[in-house]
Formats: sequence, structure tokens, C-alpha cells
Amino acid sequence: AALALSTDGGTAAAHAIMTTDLVPKQLAARLEVEGRPVTTGGIAKGSGMIEPNMATTLGFVTSDAAIAAPLLQELLTASIDRSFNCITVDGDTSTNDTVLLLANGASGQVIDDKTAGGRALDAFAAALDAVTLDLALKVVRDGEGATKLMQVDVVGARSDQEAHKVGKTVANSPLMKTALHGGEPNWGRILMAVGRSPAEVEPSRISVWYGPTQIVADGLGVLDDLSPLAEAMAQSDVELRIDLGIGSGEARVYTCDLSAEYVRINGSYIS
Amino acid sequence: AALALSTDGGTAAAHAIMTTDLVPKQLAARLEVEGRPVTTGGIAKGSGMIEPNMATTLGFVTSDAAIAAPLLQELLTASIDRSFNCITVDGDTSTNDTVLLLANGASGQVIDDKTAGGRALDAFAAALDAVTLDLALKVVRDGEGATKLMQVDVVGARSDQEAHKVGKTVANSPLMKTALHGGEPNWGRILMAVGRSPAEVEPSRISVWYGPTQIVADGLGVLDDLSPLAEAMAQSDVELRIDLGIGSGEARVYTCDLSAEYVRINGSYIS
Repeated sequence: AALALSTDGGTAAAHAIMTTDLVPKQLAARLEVEGRPVTTGGIAKGSGMIEPNMATTLGFVTSDAAIAAPLLQELLTASIDRSFNCITVDGDTSTNDTVLLLANGASGQVIDDKTAGGRALDAFAAALDAVTLDLALKVVRDGEGATKLMQVDVVGARSDQEAHKVGKTVANSPLMKTALHGGEPNWGRILMAVGRSPAEVEPSRISVWYGPTQIVADGLGVLDDLSPLAEAMAQSDVELRIDLGIGSGEARVYTCDLSAEYVRINGSYIS
Repeated sequence: AALALSTDGGTAAAHAIMTTDLVPKQLAARLEVEGRPVTTGGIAKGSGMIEPNMATTLGFVTSDAAIAAPLLQELLTASIDRSFNCITVDGDTSTNDTVLLLANGASGQVIDDKTAGGRALDAFAAALDAVTLDLALKVVRDGEGATKLMQVDVVGARSDQEAHKVGKTVANSPLMKTALHGGEPNWGRILMAVGRSPAEVEPSRISVWYGPTQIVADGLGVLDDLSPLAEAMAQSDVELRIDLGIGSGEARVYTCDLSAEYVRINGSYIS
């Protein structure tokens, strides 16, 4: 089974654009399974109030594969835990919080754990992951006033859950989000946000990287001059990696910057 | 014992201004106890990262009364719980978190629970409260980029602690803070913030007022037209009152608005 991605939106699954969003959020992934094309596509909407999980987001993913509902549910839950449940915009919450996965079997291709020696199911899961992650990141990129996307990797936590808490706290800190906006590689703010998360941390064990560049080792800054980071921080996509150094738990979350445009949008909302 | 407030800053207690703050944070209160003047004054600094309690704040309160240290500690703890521990600017945290109260007895006036039939101690406590609250509110008014102060009263909670949690969640919500900035009486955002607090709430029991004007009764909006609230929302001081309707716990917290200037200040910080 081969995996191919299409962003042309010309599939039965992704035929609509939620027109209230500035960034159309759609993607379709095409597989070939035992010679038959299988298409899985999705659309989503949302640009703020994404906490705690999905919140204002509505997502609809459809496939023409024939897959049993319990298996679909299992695949979707795992996929959402790596995508829609790992994003935030402003930390505020809302209702909706729904992503649906529907499969109608119209391709005539059954996929279960035996199809193509199990490889078809792996490929379908990969296609589903590609769709859900792409849609989730488009929600963040289209976050109110957003100009940048930051991927926050947290490793070395006591558990995956603790890593997730640290990631979300960093991702929702106003001082982290304004630093991201201004391209400020301020490591003091990172340690501040890590420290105020509800997770267990030991300051002297924390190391931090922006992209490939380490800026904190064992709780202390390692660069006399942060200016070489300015170019990386000025990009639209920034990667932050935090190693807590006390366990093997890890998580990845995504956030956007906090801009004056966010204030304008939400300060002039018409009640 | 009579209570008089002075803001001239010309007291031995409040002789210094923390020059890094835009708003000088100082106040002195003068009492007369058994014919003798007793002065209590304070200075503070801080304008962001005030969570969870005081954080970047440093406060120094001095008095020339003669009061035993254990009694001073008791009075200060109670006073701080109604002032410095009830403010927030951006929800971020920091170190420092110190308010000191010193009394050197230079006035020659002893104050204990028997002085002037107990009235002297009450008056001293009131003077101390006036000083700590004034200093705490100046920290909020001088919050980074702040143009407005909002007092959030939460009543009808299961406990005072639960009321405090609701108040802090409302006070730190980016959508509440931008609504305050823009003078938006958006009650949906208030219920959103109440709902995402860790406290127990029943949506259908919640009532909300801006100043004297009720905008939510039993979880539903009661005004067809919110425009009469525009004038009150445009003031520099806004009062929000939330009745959770499920208990007798209450708390009061203070916050400022989130402005484009906050983004500018913190997006261009020099590392």
C-alpha cells in the first residue's frame, strides 16, 4: 500500500470550505490498497478557544474505505491524541469539540488488520494521521492574529501526561507567546513557564533547544550571545525542545504567537 | 483612634520611589492613638508576572508603632490575603514574591489588643489594609500595557477558595482581558471563563452584573441591547460581579486589560 497526499480539495471528502476561517482547512490522502484507490479526506474549522481539547473546533473526516466502526474509533482516538488534542491558540475554552470520522465503504475496499498482511491498516492509520495533523496545524496557523507556529517538544518528564502539561503551560504563557511574536529567544521565560506548570520539574536538570541550537543546559543559559538565534526565531515555524531530565515521558504540542492583531480582533468583537 | 490617609509620600516610611515603574507605588496612612501620631507607609514595585501570589512584586511597609512581631505577622498575613494575593496582570509567574512589614516603635505608641479599648488595633489594621490594597492596585494599574482595572467579585461559590479560583480564571482569560480592553460587555466570555475554572459551577445558577446592571440571570443573557453598558465599560475602572448561586463562598480579585501595548512591550524585550 502506498500513501499519497493531495491538497487539491477535489475529493468527495473535502469538497467544502468553512468560509468563516481565513485559512481553508482541508486535506485528502489517497492510498492504493490491493490495486484499489482509497481516499480519506477532512475539513475543519476553528481559530481560537481551542482548550482543553478541540473546543471550538469542528472536524469532519470521511473515507471510502470499508472499515468496522470499532476499529475506526480506535484509530481516530489515537490520531486525535497526537493532533487535535495537542494544539492551543489562546488557552480559552469553548463548546463544539468534535471530530467525526465516517467511512462508507464506497471504494469497495475492506481494510482490517489482515488486509495486505496488515500493511493496509498501517497505511490507512498513517493517512488518517496526516489528515488530522494537517487540519489541526491549520487551526493553529489560522489562530486569531497568529503570524507564527511553534512546535513545543517536551521530553524527559516523569510521564507523558506530565510532559503534556508542561507543553501546554509553555504554549499558553502570554510571555512565551509574545516572545515568539517578537522573535525573542528569552530562555528565562521558558524556565518560568516550565516552572509554573503543574508537573514535577527540577530546575537544575532542564535543557532547552531552539531548533538545533541549545540555549539552556542543566538550568543555565549557555549562549553569551543570543543574536545567532534571531534568524531562526524570525521564521514562521519555530521549534522548541525542552528536556526535563528526570524521566522518559514526552509530548508534543503546537501553539501560535500572541499579536496586537489578536487584541484588535477580540477587543472589537460585536456582542 | 482616627484614620487619615496621605498620598504625599512625605513620610519616613514612603520616602523612596521604585524608579523602574511607570506609576509610583507608595502610600502612607496616619492614625492618632491616644493623642500620638502613628504613621504606616509602604512602597512596592511590580507590573507583570504577578502570579500565583505577589511574584515579581516587592513591597515594603513600615510603621512607627510599637507592635509585637507575632501580632504584626498575623495582621500582615490577613491584609495580604485581601490585597497582594488577589491581583494578576498576565497570569505568568516569577520570583521575589515578598512583602515585608516592619515596625520600629519610634512613635513611642504601643498598640496591642487592649490599647484604646481595642479600637487602636482595629484602626491600625484598617490603615494597613488601606496601604496594602492601594499598593496592590497600583501594581495592576501599572500592569504592562494596562489601560483599565477590573474588580471581579465572585459570590455564591461552594467556598471562598472556589470563589478565588473562579475570580483568577476570569481575571487571566485572554478573551476576558481583550473584552475589557475593547469595552465589550460579552457575557458569553464570562460564562466561558467561569466554566473553565477548576471550581464547581452550575451554569443555570449563574448571574452576572457589570456595575449595577445585570446582564446574566440564571445562566442566560437578560439584555436585548448591550449598548447601554458601553459607557460603563469605557471607564478606566470596571466592576464585574458573578454570583454562582450554589453556596456562600466569596472572593474579590483585580486584573487589568490586555492591550496591543502589552504585546509590544513583551515582544521587543531585550534578552
